[in-house]
Formats: sequence, C-alpha cells, structure tokens
Amino acid sequence: FQGENIERFRSDFLDYHLYDQAQIYLALSPEERITVYNYLSANEMADMFEIIEEDVESIEEYLLEMNNQYAADMLANMYADNAVDMLKQLKDERIWLYLRLMPTEAAKEIRALLSYEDETAGAIMTPEFVSIVANQTVRSAMAILKSKAPDAETIYYIYVVNVDNVLVGVISLRDLIVNDEDMMISDIMSERIVSVNVKEGQEDVAHKIRDYDFLAVPVVDENNVLLGIITVDDIIDVIDEEAVSDFSGLAGVDVEEQSENPFVAASKRLPWLITLLFLGMGTSTLISQYEGLISDASILSVFVTLITGTSGNAGTQSLAVAVRKIGMQDDEEKNLFRTILSELATGLISGLVTGITIALVIGVWKQNFILGGIIGISMLVAITVANLAGSLIPVLMDRLGFDPAVASGPFISTFSDLTSVLIYFNIAKHFITTLM
Amino acid sequence: FQGENIERFRSDFLDYHLYDQAQIYLALSPEERITVYNYLSANEMADMFEIIEEDVESIEEYLLEMNNQYAADMLANMYADNAVDMLKQLKDERIWLYLRLMPTEAAKEIRALLSYEDETAGAIMTPEFVSIVANQTVRSAMAILKSKAPDAETIYYIYVVNVDNVLVGVISLRDLIVNDEDMMISDIMSERIVSVNVKEGQEDVAHKIRDYDFLAVPVVDENNVLLGIITVDDIIDVIDEEAVSDFSGLAGVDVEEQSENPFVAASKRLPWLITLLFLGMGTSTLISQYEGLISDASILSVFVTLITGTSGNAGTQSLAVAVRKIGMQDDEEKNLFRTILSELATGLISGLVTGITIALVIGVWKQNFILGGIIGISMLVAITVANLAGSLIPVLMDRLGFDPAVASGPFISTFSDLTSVLIYFNIAKHFITTLM
Repeated sequence: FQGENIERFRSDFLDYHLYDQAQIYLALSPEERITVYNYLSANEMADMFEIIEEDVESIEEYLLEMNNQYAADMLANMYADNAVDMLKQLKDERIWLYLRLMPTEAAKEIRALLSYEDETAGAIMTPEFVSIVANQTVRSAMAILKSKAPDAETIYYIYVVNVDNVLVGVISLRDLIVNDEDMMISDIMSERIVSVNVKEGQEDVAHKIRDYDFLAVPVVDENNVLLGIITVDDIIDVIDEEAVSDFSGLAGVDVEEQSENPFVAASKRLPWLITLLFLGMGTSTLISQYEGLISDASILSVFVTLITGTSGNAGTQSLAVAVRKIGMQDDEEKNLFRTILSELATGLISGLVTGITIALVIGVWKQNFILGGIIGISMLVAITVANLAGSLIPVLMDRLGFDPAVASGPFISTFSDLTSVLIYFNIAKHFITTLM
Repeated sequence: FQGENIERFRSDFLDYHLYDQAQIYLALSPEERITVYNYLSANEMADMFEIIEEDVESIEEYLLEMNNQYAADMLANMYADNAVDMLKQLKDERIWLYLRLMPTEAAKEIRALLSYEDETAGAIMTPEFVSIVANQTVRSAMAILKSKAPDAETIYYIYVVNVDNVLVGVISLRDLIVNDEDMMISDIMSERIVSVNVKEGQEDVAHKIRDYDFLAVPVVDENNVLLGIITVDDIIDVIDEEAVSDFSGLAGVDVEEQSENPFVAASKRLPWLITLLFLGMGTSTLISQYEGLISDASILSVFVTLITGTSGNAGTQSLAVAVRKIGMQDDEEKNLFRTILSELATGLISGLVTGITIALVIGVWKQNFILGGIIGISMLVAITVANLAGSLIPVLMDRLGFDPAVASGPFISTFSDLTSVLIYFNIAKHFITTLM
C-alpha cells in the first residue's frame, strides 16, 4: 500500500489465487480494506468473496465498510447462491437496500432463492447453469456453451430441457468433447437423470452427490422443471457442517468456536454446563433420599461413580451410533423399531458381560460376593437402560423434527447418571440386610 | 435373470446409473452375481466397482467369486487409485497374482501407487490425468484432450509440464473453451499452481481442495515433477472418514458399525467398555480410601456424581474443541502453548461461574454454606483440571504421532472422575470439622 501504486497492487494481488487473495484481505485492518475497495472493482471483490462466503463470520462488517452501490454490485456479480449465503447474515432492511440497488435481473434471481427454506436444496442452489434443447448438434451446443461459460457456475454438465423448461436429459462436457461434432444432442444425452427436489433436505442432496460421484446435481420442482443446480463445492460445506454439528452435539459445545478469548469461549460453553449442572442436581437430590442407606453401608457410595460412569459410556456409544445411522439414512429407510430393538439387545449383552466381570472383580477384591452381585446386577440394568435411551432419544428427536445430535451427548450422560443411581440404590436397598 | 436373456439384462442393467447398478449388484445372491460376471465385461464391472470401492467391506469375497483373469482385467480397467483401494483389502499373494495377470502398463501404475504410505496424498492419487506442453495452441491442446479423454479421471483440469515432466502451469477446460483456438497455452495458462506433495497427509489435501473450491489438485514430488492428481470425489470420502473418526473417538465406539447383529455390535463395543470399567475401578479404589470420611458425613456422597459429571462435561467440551482445532490446522499453524493456556483460562472462568452457582444453590438448599463452599471450590478446581486435560491430552497425542481423537471422549470422562474425586474429598477433609 505504501506507494499507493494502484497498478502495482492490482497486478500483484490479482495474480494470487482467489483463496489466497481472501486470506490477505481478511488479515488487513479496516482502513486498509477501504483502500482495497478503491483499488478493486466490485466484480473482482465478488470473485474473492465467492470463495470465503461460508467461512467468514463478520460479513456484515465488511459490507458496511463499502459504499452501498459497490456492495450491491459485488453481490450482483456473485453466483446467486453465494450472494444469498451472505445476504442471509444481514438484517432485512439491508437486504432490501442491496436488492434495490442491483440490476433487476440479479435482484430477481436472488429474491427467488431467498424464499426457499433454510436447509433445503433450494437454499443452496444456483440458477447459473447451462441448459440447451435436445434438437441440435454437438457443434451448436458447444457454441452456446462458449457464450454462456463466463456466467455459469459450472459448464461441465449441460442440462437438456424442453420448451416448458422441463428437464429431459443431461450431458457432460466430456461427452460433448469426445463425440463427433455432427452428432445430435438427443442421441448422446443421458435420459436417466438423477435430480433433487427443490424442497429436499441439504443432507440428502449431499449423500446423493457423494454416492454418485457427481460434480453437480440439477434441482427441479414437482413438475420436473429445472430451477437450478447444486455444485460439489457447496456440498463439501454441507458435509462439513453436518459433521461439525454431530460432533458439537455429542460434546455439548460449538466445536467451531473461533475466538481465542477465554471469556467468549466460557460464555458460549457455560449455558450448557449450567443447564446440565441443574439436571445433575436431580441426581444429587435422588441420592440424598438414600443418605440413610449410605450411612448404614458407606461401602455403597464407593461404587456410584463406577456405575454412572460405565452406563454413561455405554449410552454415549449407543447414541453416537444412532445419530450417525439417522444421518446416513434417507427417510424411507428408517426402521425405528428395528434400530431400538437391536440397541436393546446390544445393551443386554454388553450389560451382561460387564455386570458379570464387575461382580467377580468386586467379589474377589472385597471378599463380598453379595456386594459384587448388587453392583453386577445394577450394572446390567443401568447399561441396558442407557443403551435404550441412547438410541431412543435421537430417534424421537428426529421424528419430532429436531436435530437428533443437539447436545445429546452430555444429556445422555446426565440422564444415565440419574437412572443408574435410581437402579443401584433400589437394588441395594433390597439386599441391605443380607449385605450387612 | 429368469429367461437368461443376456441382451435384455445387459440393456436394462447398463441403462442404470453406475451407483444404481452397484446397489442392484450388492443386493444379489452369490449365484446371481456369478451370472452377472458372465453377462458383463470386465470393463463394465470396472465402471461399476469404481463407484463403490470405498463403501464395500467384502471386496475380497466378490473378487474370489470371479475368474482370476476377469478380476485382474477388471482391476486393470479401473482408475488406478480405486484399484489400489480395493487391492489394499487383499492378502499380498492375491495382489501379486492379479498384478501378474494384468497388462504390464496397468500393473506398473498400480505397483507405484501401492508403495505410498497410507494416509498420504500418494495413496489416493491417480496417474490418469491429462498433461500437455505449453508451446502449442488451444486447438492442438483440445485435440490431445479429445484423444486422452476416455482414459483420464478428469479432463476438466489440464496440467502443463516441461520436458522433464515438471509441473509449470495449469489450465481449466473452461479456459480452453472460452479462449480463441489460436491462442498459445503458455499465454493463457495459470502459473500460480496450488499442488500437494506426494507425502502430504490426506487431510491437508482435503482442506486445500475444500478451501480453494477445486475439482482436483495435482500431486508432485520434491522436484515438482507431476506424479498424479487427486479428485474431489476422493476428497469427500476423506472428509467423511475424518468426521467419522473424530465422532467415533469422542464416543468410544466405531459409529460406522454396519451389522445389525447385537452380538457383533456388543463385541465391538465391549473392549472399550471393559477397559474404561477397570479405569473406573481406580476411581472406586480412591473413593474407598475416604470411606471413613463418608460414614462421618454421608452428605458428602450426595454430591460426588454432580462434581464428576460436571467436570466430565467441561472436559469433553474442551476436548472436542481441541480435537477439531488440531484437525483443521496445518502443522505450522499449531501453537500448542497458546491453545492450552487459553483452555486453562476458559476452565478457570467456567469453573468460577459454575462453582459460585452451585455454592449458592447448595448453601440455600441445605442451609449450609460451608458444604456449599466445599462443593463450589471443588467444582472450580475440578473443572479447571478437566479443561486443561481435555486440551492437553489430544495435543500430546497429536505430538506423539497418534490420532488425537482415538477414544479420547470416554477416557477424559473417566480421568476427570478420578481427579474430581481426589480434589473433592481432599478439600472436604480440610473442612470436615467445621462441617460437622
């Protein structure tokens, strides 16, 4: 910036890859960024923002730094799906402001995409695809492709539509290139099209692209009218977010937490910690009902954490398997009853093996097989219950339309603390006279 | 199959998408599969296996059903990276058998790829790319592309090399198409190449493809000689596996567990459950040292699970954040000391807030602020220790070359049970006379 040599800066900066340009830009101070807005065109900024729209948290800050017309031009120059991702982070008045300042065509496209619900295919599709009619030669299709290439998000799949814009075929650029230029599109296009409905969930779209190894998938409405495409780069983000959300749920924390500031980090983690603390108070209240039992046989208190800990581990295992299974399956494949029955059986078997093991170990260690038996049976029941809860809770949450992964890990642990204690002390109560 | 009408089966089956063909094939009985091998050419089977190589567990079974020459031909017809993925699941003798039966060229390519270490870029790259020299026109480059297209895994990026096969530039098919046919490749190619080293880790490659929104990335050796390419479909599998492994680690279970048989499921989960059970016995042994204290003040036993549970939750949060952070960063970016210091501070703040909350709640509930104080201070110390352990353990494991995510979740919970108990009873011991 020093010499304020615009030409020098432009040639150096624009020579970088877009991702590297973005990294440089993100490292600048607000004042320096203002200079960049003066040095680069709205179109060049659009190219750069295209690549970071999913990573940047403070889009609003950057947009507010820009002249409004410049920001609107930048958004209009982006692929509509990415512009929408950015706009969704803004307040409604801002969105309308930018849409007003944009060329009508771009504003119309963006407005259409904004109307789709979050998490659906419609919300991440882009209308910038290449479509052609079937009744032409490879040569003329290539000419169309050439003219549309600068604006299309991908030119590697070309979609074939009829006069009503209904999707009737697809052909890859690879097929166009290897075929003779005089061939007719209708003869070489594939009519077995894999498409997604505009209302379909993003995760289902992601699984389709992954399974079929596609670079993009067409999005259609109920009448098979082609509305847009979803490209593989957007799907990688969906898969990533899905993993982050499952992982965060299991740990009861947003694992993407960006700030290194411990106050910010603690303030994000504390709501869960405190909620669970109060749930944990339930377990303490329950234990306090058995204080008499404990002061009669204080040996019982030695094994509380062993039983709560082990059944918590078993419940977490069953939970993680269930969450993953739910995430991987399409709706029609879900067989709730079978999943739960199978987890129940797995819990019984694990509980039996663990219970017998601990009964023997404690029996020998404390020379007291009644104590061993109490703990072994408690372990068996507690593990079975935890396994069942671990699969039942995510399945129910999914059925009720919630994300099955939300903070389910710590919740299961805390829940299984409560049930384990209840099971343990009730079993112990029955044998207390024999034990002492 | 009924009429054994080969032509009818072939036209129906081959009309499906490869992924759908594979789903049909996987649902067949062994006898029916043998018929399929007779009906389809090795090349057609290769196309189909290409799309499922990463999902299928019993590749060996399928290969053994085939005639050896047929299996070898099929493997030779696959892209080398996918053939290698399948071969790696076989015994060495089998691998050598198939390599002997293959055309020399294919065997040589596969042998080269087999020599790369698992988890490196080399192990998932394919040598089937399109490379050209810079000193030619767009027209002649397109002619080369046309001839190489049938064998290349992607034709959408064309790599430009010099006479020593050193990578000097890259050009996308899109650029070839939009530029005039008389332009020279050297004038329009990009010389700022993002490549990966053949020994680089697969996760780093995945992050590069994701960040730059690439469809493929070139793989080079130390001298920048082009060895292969890695395509985005392989990277989706890497990202998926990374997520599965992190998620599995946090839960202490292989979340991809395929079998619905509860005996198989239990046998896979029990090793971890039993290991943790014995670690948990450590906590019980420790508590038994304080049995005297508990029988003097049985109220203490009421809050053990509250303290172990809450610090376990805090430790798991800190662990999940640390594992994710380690996975996302390249080696040079890792600042161990800062991560740990920041987690220590986060733990102190969370511990302070949680400790004060619980001290007040218990103080009011039990009308005993000394008990509240004991539990509050124990909570503060236990949470701080758990947070520190949650970040320290994965960082150390990563440093020692282990996967930081391996079963770390239950390990942290069990570890924090032990330390929490130690902290709690030692603090309680000091105040026992005041308490009673």
